[in-house]
Amino acid sequence: MGQVQPRWAIGNFILSPRIQKEDVFEIYKGIKSELDRWNCQIIGGDISKSKEISLSLTLLGILKDKHPITRTGFRIGDYLCVSGTLGDSLLGLKILNRIQKNKTIRTKNDSVIAYLVKRHLLPQLRFDGLKKYYKYVTSCTDLSDGLQKALEIMTRTSSEVSVEIDVEKLPLSWQAREFCNCENIDSKKIALEGGEDYEVLFTVSTRNLKRIKKESGISIIGKIVPRSGSKNILLQHSNIKGKLVGFEHLF
Amino acid sequence: MGQVQPRWAIGNFILSPRIQKEDVFEIYKGIKSELDRWNCQIIGGDISKSKEISLSLTLLGILKDKHPITRTGFRIGDYLCVSGTLGDSLLGLKILNRIQKNKTIRTKNDSVIAYLVKRHLLPQLRFDGLKKYYKYVTSCTDLSDGLQKALEIMTRTSSEVSVEIDVEKLPLSWQAREFCNCENIDSKKIALEGGEDYEVLFTVSTRNLKRIKKESGISIIGKIVPRSGSKNILLQHSNIKGKLVGFEHLF
Repeated sequence: MGQVQPRWAIGNFILSPRIQKEDVFEIYKGIKSELDRWNCQIIGGDISKSKEISLSLTLLGILKDKHPITRTGFRIGDYLCVSGTLGDSLLGLKILNRIQKNKTIRTKNDSVIAYLVKRHLLPQLRFDGLKKYYKYVTSCTDLSDGLQKALEIMTRTSSEVSVEIDVEKLPLSWQAREFCNCENIDSKKIALEGGEDYEVLFTVSTRNLKRIKKESGISIIGKIVPRSGSKNILLQHSNIKGKLVGFEHLF
Repeated sequence: MGQVQPRWAIGNFILSPRIQKEDVFEIYKGIKSELDRWNCQIIGGDISKSKEISLSLTLLGILKDKHPITRTGFRIGDYLCVSGTLGDSLLGLKILNRIQKNKTIRTKNDSVIAYLVKRHLLPQLRFDGLKKYYKYVTSCTDLSDGLQKALEIMTRTSSEVSVEIDVEKLPLSWQAREFCNCENIDSKKIALEGGEDYEVLFTVSTRNLKRIKKESGISIIGKIVPRSGSKNILLQHSNIKGKLVGFEHLF
């Protein structure tokens, strides 16, 4: 993570006979126009046929600083921060699944529904907005698989630290709060489990915390603490029921 | 093409619920052991789920010469050469298809069947064997999609040249000849159309032809000539019936 300028993309497009050649060109044009925005080129990959469609892009880039920001550069005492709001994308997916299965949606506010679905289908990268914080950041990771999963990965390599999260501080959009209220969903659980929000989790030292505090769109959600006991994730103010689930990668 | 040292691989593995986790690890171990031979590492990619399995690797490498050998570096008068034998892999695929569909195979010689199937399922890279020729080579391309397709791609960018191929010179293994004889298949057509042989097509100047001529495992199959008329591929000694088909990529 950190100051990486994306430059090249490897595209893997598994297409199905159900999809028309014209649609494939439209999809390709969409991908290309997004890549053009970042001055990024498709340099290779593969196209093949299957019963189901699968589109994947892997981006390669150039590190602009001498040192990358890794997932594990943090020290005990560093503060944990997240950008934006969490769980919107997962709620958008839940809405789409309910629509597909003809299940009831109790939320009456259409703009809430539209916002959450859009956050799932058309996520916006905050590349430029986050740039100015990089110099204060000691470690950083994406939240593709959810906050809880990201915290697990961060602490996996060190048996000496735990992360202490104040569940009350997890940032939620008002739309997510309203939807969770109406549908009787635990919004804190959604914030911990939901992935694909295209936000980042990062740490800053105590010294730089004041610089981050001033910024809008950044929430300080916890701290790196010495490990005491077996748990690597400690939840404060939490009354979450049931086991937390994040997306589990095979590798 | 040319002196490229493979270094990194992007893996895209679309897995199906029908495949066991243990089998996935076995496949991965197989891929890794092959990559280890070339000192190559998987650095990224994607894993997802579908009804059908699809495995794809894209390799990235370092160019060891100042200039790459391109597909279009040839000049009029250069000779066209191919490594190894052509069409074995396609015949191996035909055999497997016939077995799957319970169709008759007339060829009685089991070693012929085994050889062709192996050439399809376990192709061997000739990386080291071809290295010594690179300095004489003016252009080079792989034969993944068949000779005819490679010739099309080579001549696509120049309206001033054609390739003249002597069909009698196309290299065929004795196993391919015997199988085609028994099954009443036009072996020359197979040599022109068959892909996935993991051989290369390259050109050399008249001056360097004598160096290539001495080498076994290389066949001189034709020449780059000035274009006269509309055809970019001219076949000598050919009595091939029907239209030639090569694998047509969408992009």
